[in-house]
Amino acid sequence: MRTTVGWGADGPAAVLRRVPVERRDLRPDDLAVRVDYCGVCHTDLHAVHAHSGGTTLVPGHEFTGVVTEVGPEVTRFAVGDPVGVGNIVDSCGECAMCRADQENFCHTFPTLTYGGTDRHDGSATLGGYSREYIVRDGFAYPLPAGLDPAAAAPLLCAGITVWEPLRALGVGPGSRVAVAGLGGLGHLAVRFAVALGADTTVISRSADKADDARRLGAHDLIDSTDPDRLAAARDRFDVVIDTISAPHDLGPYLRLVAMDGTLSQVGYLGEVTIETMDLLAGRKRLSSAGSGGRAATAAMLDFCAEHGVTADIELLPSARVNEAFDRLQRNDVRYRFVLDLSDLS
Amino acid sequence: MRTTVGWGADGPAAVLRRVPVERRDLRPDDLAVRVDYCGVCHTDLHAVHAHSGGTTLVPGHEFTGVVTEVGPEVTRFAVGDPVGVGNIVDSCGECAMCRADQENFCHTFPTLTYGGTDRHDGSATLGGYSREYIVRDGFAYPLPAGLDPAAAAPLLCAGITVWEPLRALGVGPGSRVAVAGLGGLGHLAVRFAVALGADTTVISRSADKADDARRLGAHDLIDSTDPDRLAAARDRFDVVIDTISAPHDLGPYLRLVAMDGTLSQVGYLGEVTIETMDLLAGRKRLSSAGSGGRAATAAMLDFCAEHGVTADIELLPSARVNEAFDRLQRNDVRYRFVLDLSDLS
Repeated sequence: MRTTVGWGADGPAAVLRRVPVERRDLRPDDLAVRVDYCGVCHTDLHAVHAHSGGTTLVPGHEFTGVVTEVGPEVTRFAVGDPVGVGNIVDSCGECAMCRADQENFCHTFPTLTYGGTDRHDGSATLGGYSREYIVRDGFAYPLPAGLDPAAAAPLLCAGITVWEPLRALGVGPGSRVAVAGLGGLGHLAVRFAVALGADTTVISRSADKADDARRLGAHDLIDSTDPDRLAAARDRFDVVIDTISAPHDLGPYLRLVAMDGTLSQVGYLGEVTIETMDLLAGRKRLSSAGSGGRAATAAMLDFCAEHGVTADIELLPSARVNEAFDRLQRNDVRYRFVLDLSDLS
Repeated sequence: MRTTVGWGADGPAAVLRRVPVERRDLRPDDLAVRVDYCGVCHTDLHAVHAHSGGTTLVPGHEFTGVVTEVGPEVTRFAVGDPVGVGNIVDSCGECAMCRADQENFCHTFPTLTYGGTDRHDGSATLGGYSREYIVRDGFAYPLPAGLDPAAAAPLLCAGITVWEPLRALGVGPGSRVAVAGLGGLGHLAVRFAVALGADTTVISRSADKADDARRLGAHDLIDSTDPDRLAAARDRFDVVIDTISAPHDLGPYLRLVAMDGTLSQVGYLGEVTIETMDLLAGRKRLSSAGSGGRAATAAMLDFCAEHGVTADIELLPSARVNEAFDRLQRNDVRYRFVLDLSDLS
């Protein structure tokens, strides 16, 4: 075992505190990564709130860093390489989903970057709010040159989560796309949709984000609190990406979808109730997305390098993680907190 | 006004009784149709149970008959022509949905064949459980030669309701289709899917329908009460058409859908609750369908004539309509009751 340091929670009410983090010794196909930047995801907040204590939870599943050591079987990476890691770090590799490059849907459930269970030693995985992470080489991604490693960190979870439905739904030039919710996921969805050539609109209850929406490349922002504007946009969009993280009625967003179009709800909402008439009237489809497979993640990173897409971030020393949590809870961030973990050295 | 005779309900507890039915005098674009055969749809049962009384409800929205009179502007039909009428008899003709040949999704709501309101005189529409119906020529369909008019009647509602999603979802040779529920809609969905070239499976809690499923062209029946068989069929179907009319959990059916596939729930279930993980894990889509537009209905009838597709019916004299209702309520019909209205003459 080797020991690093990170930020962990002992229970739901607890603040994150500086904790020692044990890491496994490298297996033959492992990399050691010095974690430089880790994004703060809504999932981290939920995980800490849901944590019952007894063990220490170390969140963090979108991070970038540099390879510091490689196992003897590793060929794709060398010491000094810039890499990224997302929210899954292993899968069975054998089921239909793994064979279809969708390890995120692995039938045996993929091993999560934190809060998961290692497939070899049964240990609990501890996340990227720490200075070092040990990961199988197949689940690390080379970080393309030209991507700022801090602003790229959120691509590994927020980015791939919105990239997947945009690609699966065939968004491209001429597509009419609406992005509901302009936060960490939403602002990346806008950038991707615009870069893919779509005519992109933001739907938000924060009308004061209209300038930001245009800066990101959207041509319009529709205020979701204005029933007249929503009614005028009925049946208008081929694809609506719903990034709103709080439980909400999907009906108003389904009504914006054009015939044969799709509402893709991203992030995990749990159970949702829908009025089937909202689907029926217009042959609309509801889908859901979260995370992505390895091939898609690598393709997304290449696309980002080519099109200059990264997240708008607020970079904080990792010691201010609790402040980031407080503000994220109030949606007070444009648009993603990233922790700078160099203060842990 | 002109008067015919039909079967009507005065309130929810009431049985249907023989009633006089007033019909409008023909407008320039109207046809008078002698109704010969009218299918008995689950919707009719629901409508009678939901009827609060005060007026008389005459159900029936899938019928065939013969033109007996035409208005002066009618050019597509002549006296003696065999025709069919489905569940909508008018729409605005101007909205985006009407312009896209989807009058069933008309933004002003289409005029229903019964329980609707006529767009010109404001009268309540009365359905096809009657010997005569007056309908705008644009909402009657020529019945292709070779289709038995009694067995074709259910095509006008049950048929188009399952035809639409199969076509919208691109079902054809090589598609893997499952049809959940083998009733009025389900047995037609199987016939259509088979005729379209799909590899078709029935999912039913009635394992004793396996022989019937094969007779209809399905290659297999999966017993939905057998968890092992359901688990073995996970992620197997590109399209699952869910025709189950009673409220039920969609989760088991979503889990049968392959990656990027669709569960299409047909018939109106009202609100449904789904676990988004069932959509998320496999990038699956949920859609809903009911009825269809005029162009699709005409295309379906042509397809049926070409491929010899009609419903398996149990033909009853219309005076036995209450018996049909009782048995339909118990799902005791293979697979659609059709009323023979000649006993009303």
